[in-house]
Amino acid sequence: MSGSTFGEAFKITTFGESHGEAVGVIIDGITPGLEISEAEIQVQMDRRKPGQSSVTTPRKESDKVHIVSGIFEGKATGTPMMVVLYNHDMKSEAYSDIQNLFRPGHADYTYLKKYGIRDHRGSGRASGRETAGRVAAGAIARKSLEQRGVSIVAYTKEIGGIQCETYSEEVIEKNAVRACDPVAAEKMVKLIEGLAKEGNSCGGVVECRIRGVQPGLGEPVFDKIDADLAKAMLSIGAVKGIEFGAGFAAARMLGSEHNDHMNKDGFVTNNAGGILGGISTGEEIVFRVAVKPTSSISVPQKTIDVNGDEKPIVTEGRHDPSICPRIVPVIEAMACLVLEDHYKRQAALHA
Amino acid sequence: MSGSTFGEAFKITTFGESHGEAVGVIIDGITPGLEISEAEIQVQMDRRKPGQSSVTTPRKESDKVHIVSGIFEGKATGTPMMVVLYNHDMKSEAYSDIQNLFRPGHADYTYLKKYGIRDHRGSGRASGRETAGRVAAGAIARKSLEQRGVSIVAYTKEIGGIQCETYSEEVIEKNAVRACDPVAAEKMVKLIEGLAKEGNSCGGVVECRIRGVQPGLGEPVFDKIDADLAKAMLSIGAVKGIEFGAGFAAARMLGSEHNDHMNKDGFVTNNAGGILGGISTGEEIVFRVAVKPTSSISVPQKTIDVNGDEKPIVTEGRHDPSICPRIVPVIEAMACLVLEDHYKRQAALHA
Amino acid sequence: MSGSTFGEAFKITTFGESHGEAVGVIIDGITPGLEISEAEIQVQMDRRKPGQSSVTTPRKESDKVHIVSGIFEGKATGTPMMVVLYNHDMKSEAYSDIQNLFRPGHADYTYLKKYGIRDHRGSGRASGRETAGRVAAGAIARKSLEQRGVSIVAYTKEIGGIQCETYSEEVIEKNAVRACDPVAAEKMVKLIEGLAKEGNSCGGVVECRIRGVQPGLGEPVFDKIDADLAKAMLSIGAVKGIEFGAGFAAARMLGSEHNDHMNKDGFVTNNAGGILGGISTGEEIVFRVAVKPTSSISVPQKTIDVNGDEKPIVTEGRHDPSICPRIVPVIEAMACLVLEDHYKRQAALHA
Amino acid sequence: MSGSTFGEAFKITTFGESHGEAVGVIIDGITPGLEISEAEIQVQMDRRKPGQSSVTTPRKESDKVHIVSGIFEGKATGTPMMVVLYNHDMKSEAYSDIQNLFRPGHADYTYLKKYGIRDHRGSGRASGRETAGRVAAGAIARKSLEQRGVSIVAYTKEIGGIQCETYSEEVIEKNAVRACDPVAAEKMVKLIEGLAKEGNSCGGVVECRIRGVQPGLGEPVFDKIDADLAKAMLSIGAVKGIEFGAGFAAARMLGSEHNDHMNKDGFVTNNAGGILGGISTGEEIVFRVAVKPTSSISVPQKTIDVNGDEKPIVTEGRHDPSICPRIVPVIEAMACLVLEDHYKRQAALHA
Repeated sequence: MSGSTFGEAFKITTFGESHGEAVGVIIDGITPGLEISEAEIQVQMDRRKPGQSSVTTPRKESDKVHIVSGIFEGKATGTPMMVVLYNHDMKSEAYSDIQNLFRPGHADYTYLKKYGIRDHRGSGRASGRETAGRVAAGAIARKSLEQRGVSIVAYTKEIGGIQCETYSEEVIEKNAVRACDPVAAEKMVKLIEGLAKEGNSCGGVVECRIRGVQPGLGEPVFDKIDADLAKAMLSIGAVKGIEFGAGFAAARMLGSEHNDHMNKDGFVTNNAGGILGGISTGEEIVFRVAVKPTSSISVPQKTIDVNGDEKPIVTEGRHDPSICPRIVPVIEAMACLVLEDHYKRQAALHA
Repeated sequence: MSGSTFGEAFKITTFGESHGEAVGVIIDGITPGLEISEAEIQVQMDRRKPGQSSVTTPRKESDKVHIVSGIFEGKATGTPMMVVLYNHDMKSEAYSDIQNLFRPGHADYTYLKKYGIRDHRGSGRASGRETAGRVAAGAIARKSLEQRGVSIVAYTKEIGGIQCETYSEEVIEKNAVRACDPVAAEKMVKLIEGLAKEGNSCGGVVECRIRGVQPGLGEPVFDKIDADLAKAMLSIGAVKGIEFGAGFAAARMLGSEHNDHMNKDGFVTNNAGGILGGISTGEEIVFRVAVKPTSSISVPQKTIDVNGDEKPIVTEGRHDPSICPRIVPVIEAMACLVLEDHYKRQAALHA
Repeated sequence: MSGSTFGEAFKITTFGESHGEAVGVIIDGITPGLEISEAEIQVQMDRRKPGQSSVTTPRKESDKVHIVSGIFEGKATGTPMMVVLYNHDMKSEAYSDIQNLFRPGHADYTYLKKYGIRDHRGSGRASGRETAGRVAAGAIARKSLEQRGVSIVAYTKEIGGIQCETYSEEVIEKNAVRACDPVAAEKMVKLIEGLAKEGNSCGGVVECRIRGVQPGLGEPVFDKIDADLAKAMLSIGAVKGIEFGAGFAAARMLGSEHNDHMNKDGFVTNNAGGILGGISTGEEIVFRVAVKPTSSISVPQKTIDVNGDEKPIVTEGRHDPSICPRIVPVIEAMACLVLEDHYKRQAALHA
Repeated sequence: MSGSTFGEAFKITTFGESHGEAVGVIIDGITPGLEISEAEIQVQMDRRKPGQSSVTTPRKESDKVHIVSGIFEGKATGTPMMVVLYNHDMKSEAYSDIQNLFRPGHADYTYLKKYGIRDHRGSGRASGRETAGRVAAGAIARKSLEQRGVSIVAYTKEIGGIQCETYSEEVIEKNAVRACDPVAAEKMVKLIEGLAKEGNSCGGVVECRIRGVQPGLGEPVFDKIDADLAKAMLSIGAVKGIEFGAGFAAARMLGSEHNDHMNKDGFVTNNAGGILGGISTGEEIVFRVAVKPTSSISVPQKTIDVNGDEKPIVTEGRHDPSICPRIVPVIEAMACLVLEDHYKRQAALHA
């Protein structure tokens, strides 16, 4: 009801604010006996954390994973696992100057309108920091999915208009922007470094591929795999769009071009992006998300304050010129949550 | 869990198959005392029904709305309203030839894989006919939203590559494709008529605008208004993508271009599409969905049968060469459901 | 949210009013492939229907089961099954005299206060007739449970102070009050016939036994099997209490008396009623519910009307002097719904 | 699905084990702006904590309330409030002797059967300690309910067969057993002290009264106020039964005795316990719960170990001879959660 819970059979609830004491998550529905270590979760957390490279915010968060409950002798007990990440390098004072201003592109105005009260430090629950709990939960879902033979990989496909033209999975984690094309990656890094100097930011496109899902996963009619993935992705702050398979290009195709034929070996093409009628076809599930340029920029902007008076604003803070590299593990995490949930729901249906 | 329920505080569950006895919906959470008539619902139902024009399937469905429960002397009682629409013009025999074939682009294969059993007539629950119940429920949500001062309008923005270049709301319901540009509409109709003759189909883009939503509606962090709208839209069979505000174009913008500034009168621009941090800004909520070309075409295609043997297939049946005109009221209905639900959730939070 | 839905993985939503067109239910989560016939459901429906004997209301309802969706060639498809039961013998005019009076013991006053609007014919959703949908759904759950080796039986244990002193399952369906002791049953029937003449009614106790549930079913900590059964039973209009195993008698026992010891063959005693920590022990699950005397009596009573004016009231109508015999199949149905739901949830957890 | 979440519009999820690092709760749906302090929550927590008197376990838990999120400058922000209570005085080694034994009356056997894995220290999630999070959440619900004019009080009505014969609210918190009759309270204390010496335990009955609820609260047909209260109460480990108003005694009453008449001033009697058709009448909501004798006793008992071998068992540990005094605040907390949830649901329905 109040929006902080996701999933049904594999369910998470996140808590915590950007500049509060901690952020974290409760995960309920983990298969009992699943082996989980803080170190495994930390691997994913480190991919999301700030301060990784020249293209990410210099805010330092140790983002140290701490499991509080739901584990016994290295195995999930099947009861709620609470994972907490304490906040350290907060510098809330950086926000005192702008505490009464509505930062353009941020949720300051809408949160105040919704709640009538607002924690002005950082962005409270609307901060990207909230996603740390999702990544922790996603790491656990991923562990389970791996045992099911499912793999999930996301990567930057485009940043600031620069598109990847080759696809190599090995290079993704080896460049600062998590692009699938090392040549494009270099251009992207340069672009971002330039924008950082100007105090500006840019958007991009992240693509995700999910492999190993057998045909038949997903619930019609409202909880289609693509519907749930779309919700999952749009629940990430900076995401403004999603498309599956041929996506918006399908709008310009004929039926005779778009329909994926089948032969003995399965589907001949994959315009559907691995999903038909909301249910997995067994082909790769492919989708792309549109990521908006980071809202926090130090270019002067115009806004109003809580009294409605017009005011110039320059957001100092420490921010990512492009959020793409750090959103990649969040997208993967959300995809993992959706899939693990649907595997469990499928088991319930057939039980 | 099993995917046929949508919403939390304003909740619907649909039932029924394309070629079964009936399709319908139960709506729970209607504000007691809301005046509702079958005639009002019928208005929306008639916009969705087949056989409206030269560009829609000739299948005739009276689609006569029948309210079975939850109403007393013209007013909602606040208890579950069940609305049923009986199926009439079914011609299931048209499907007997292809009952063992997997129609390209359809959910035949995936449903069989999921359930291990399949109602081969029509597409069962995967049929567009399932959306009739949604439109009925949406009409009730719309009635309530109108009383809240909210209006929702969707229209064809692009079909088969032909784009609307002007915007006039008055023309939408006056052309067979529900386009916002009468000149483009004429071209679209011609294109579709041509495709119909060839037995082919085409996709398109539908845009939706929601006005009158006050700032502050939506639940962070997972149940953002855009996340819920994305799920709602992707739950419609033919939809392959969605974007809000600047959408995928935002991926190519700078922060300084994309951020919407504010002045005394509110937001200066609306790249955000009326949503920040998942919560309404008070500006128009704008999104576009990518609609794939109708899967049912009579152009010869290649597929396999349930035994895995390769077979040619020609889908005869009666189908829409482009689903855009008839998907418009479904998109509006789903948007209505999301909004009415969020209004009620907001009331619960502040109660 | 609005109270007409029960269950998570095996979920039902009921609709319809006592004197409307129909009552019914949508069941979502049925295992695909489960063989189901209207005749099987009818068997349970006939046990609940009015007019069975001298001790039940003479209202005649054919209560003919009609499956509208979710079935194909005799098997559940795994999609929502809608079952409808049309109302026939309504005599709503019998209620016109009392349409502005609040009948003692009925929900007339509370429904009006809640909704601000009330369908005064029968009791609307508060009528026992609403349970017809539950019994239909329960019959399907029971079919599945039988295949899991689970059996459920409920019976009258006490009526109007007359207690069963022997236990024989064979006699339950052979006496008009569904008691487990034929001698007590005879006395109960006489008592009820006497009360019927006086226009009065009496309460009773119904006991339910569930066998064949393996140890380990149930979800801690809020969705304990007993917690869910308690909710299920108290959701039946006339039920005012429930106790498991030793129940209220446990309040007067010592720990050394109440604790069930174990030996090689399992539990030595079953004071726990088959549930420890909310999870099944493998022993018989045993509970009893307190059933209040039927509220509709023709003895003169005092009440007020919608304007607050004091008025005498004599409820004519046609009613059961004791609801116990007809509540038995409803209790069984609700127990079936809880168990089937938990079996599916257990499968999801371990998937 | 997995049982650790309760409520819909005011929702809590608890986490943590008896002998883990901490127990706690996330509360989602708190009215934004509600003033809340750790001290206020602590008041309720202190009523539940062990070591309060001669009749409670000597285990010492500071049970210090710590709010981690969802609060800003003393007010609820409307986002998830996480409250944690660290475990200190655990003495897990006391459990090492019995780690392979199934303690009679405990959930050891059922948890192992359910999960295939078990945290043998304390009782894991089945421990009464899990309820600490509920009490914290309940304190917040209570704060809100007080502002609605609702008050909730529970008290020991009977212990070990000794019944309260007078009713005085002032004495409840002034005697060690939280009884409503000071004379009975003295006898109860003596009885418990005697049982403590013998290493035995006893059960009791706790009654709860809720005042100030206006007529019309509750959701038919499954989420009746009494159905939800029944689930809430049965979700407390030691509770084996519940009855509302006349309860099981209603089973022995005639309709003419049980029906509550109305006059100008409202209801003349309250056999219904303040609820008709699952909806509040405006009268006091009254229910009683049966509390079993504490399972942990040091009287020698017979059980089996994980290999099925018969073994004698003496549970040393530190336990409450009667759980009634400490269950009182838990019962109140659960009642608060149910009511606050229903107030918010009612607001959603009428929004």
